[in-house]
Amino acid sequence: MPSKALIQKVSSLSHKKFRDELGLFVAEGDKLVEELINSSFLVQHLFVTQSSALKDYNHPGKELVDEKDMKRLSRLKTPSPSLAIVKIPDQKLNTEALKHQLSIVLDGIQDPGNLGTIIRLADWFGINTVICSTDTVDCYNPKVVQATMGAITRVSIHYYSLTELLPALPHDIPIYGTFLNGSNIYSTTLSPYGMLVMGNEGNGISKEVETLIQHRLHIPPFVRNEKGSESLNAAIATAICCSEFRRR
Amino acid sequence: MPSKALIQKVSSLSHKKFRDELGLFVAEGDKLVEELINSSFLVQHLFVTQSSALKDYNHPGKELVDEKDMKRLSRLKTPSPSLAIVKIPDQKLNTEALKHQLSIVLDGIQDPGNLGTIIRLADWFGINTVICSTDTVDCYNPKVVQATMGAITRVSIHYYSLTELLPALPHDIPIYGTFLNGSNIYSTTLSPYGMLVMGNEGNGISKEVETLIQHRLHIPPFVRNEKGSESLNAAIATAICCSEFRRR
Repeated sequence: MPSKALIQKVSSLSHKKFRDELGLFVAEGDKLVEELINSSFLVQHLFVTQSSALKDYNHPGKELVDEKDMKRLSRLKTPSPSLAIVKIPDQKLNTEALKHQLSIVLDGIQDPGNLGTIIRLADWFGINTVICSTDTVDCYNPKVVQATMGAITRVSIHYYSLTELLPALPHDIPIYGTFLNGSNIYSTTLSPYGMLVMGNEGNGISKEVETLIQHRLHIPPFVRNEKGSESLNAAIATAICCSEFRRR
Repeated sequence: MPSKALIQKVSSLSHKKFRDELGLFVAEGDKLVEELINSSFLVQHLFVTQSSALKDYNHPGKELVDEKDMKRLSRLKTPSPSLAIVKIPDQKLNTEALKHQLSIVLDGIQDPGNLGTIIRLADWFGINTVICSTDTVDCYNPKVVQATMGAITRVSIHYYSLTELLPALPHDIPIYGTFLNGSNIYSTTLSPYGMLVMGNEGNGISKEVETLIQHRLHIPPFVRNEKGSESLNAAIATAICCSEFRRR
């Protein structure tokens, strides 16, 4: 049976403050937890119930718990059969490597589901690096972790002040951003590498970051009058941009 | 002050059973509610607090309520300043018109956020018709309505048994579907009109519907090994497909 202190620790990890202090985050669900165990991430504790596919897993931090205890540990309405406490990795950003790859830069994404979905689609499109502004939602927020569907083990995620990082990058890395005015992404020549900056859900790219963007892109809507939707969901816009960069 | 019966009515509308019985649904938030008022939808009741941008709106069903009452009415953790009870429209599917347009067909989408996001992106891409299988989540579910960001007023949504509807369509309408095996969507010739079938989040397109699909499409991943994400989120995959149909 997990101690009261451990249950409190898991509970505290739903807050960024305690994740930062303890350097830990929580993941739930057999598929996600298995991906974490098989990745370079360090799983410190692994709680499994009898119904978990991981219950016979040979893991030093494993503890078999009953469903009542799992209910105490879990933050989900319907608890999963497994829950892991995982160490937040210490990932270094290699700015030289950015020269040869396409990377996603997020300027103030607020919705955990959007961030998780963007990490998942980055993985699908073979994008290894996602750089987030310091006001972007924390990628170790449980809702983000769940929405990545395991992609968080394969995409390295970094938090920086974008106004400090972007000017410090090697100068031959092109910086793209999407705006309401910009060149039509479908007909613009796109580099196979560079930084693709996507903005906040409501306000787009911030004024400060906008001045650092070299190539303004625009996803044209397909409406015949002004009555259509004004914008796309942030994750959807990111997907369309990545699809355009990658299909060429 | 809204009567207890009215509060119960609003509460009951979070269940599909009662939405079907009463022919009503609920929408919250100034922007969404204003779009509904200005659309062909019939707003039966309009509750606004002092802080609502719609508080001076001239509407026969308007009632000014205090924040305590709004909290009773609202299904949101943070209640919006406005809430509307709206009549579910009686939309007829014009199968002849489908010959000249691109339409989205959803086979068993379960997540309300996904359906709402798909309706929103349909609107963005100028797609007027979304046809859902009967086991797709209800589009008047409050979470779907919110996620459409108003696009629900511009996209007409229909529920059908796909195995009955698709064979009954005019034979010159091409039916596309996405699969794990199929032609690369980036290099396949796509018709500017037709039906684009997207499958369930976990299982894709059902066996019964699969046999009705004439053109199998595939969104190729961009990973160099087998360790990447296995799939894209359903709304993301729909966006990439629509983007491909529309850019040509």
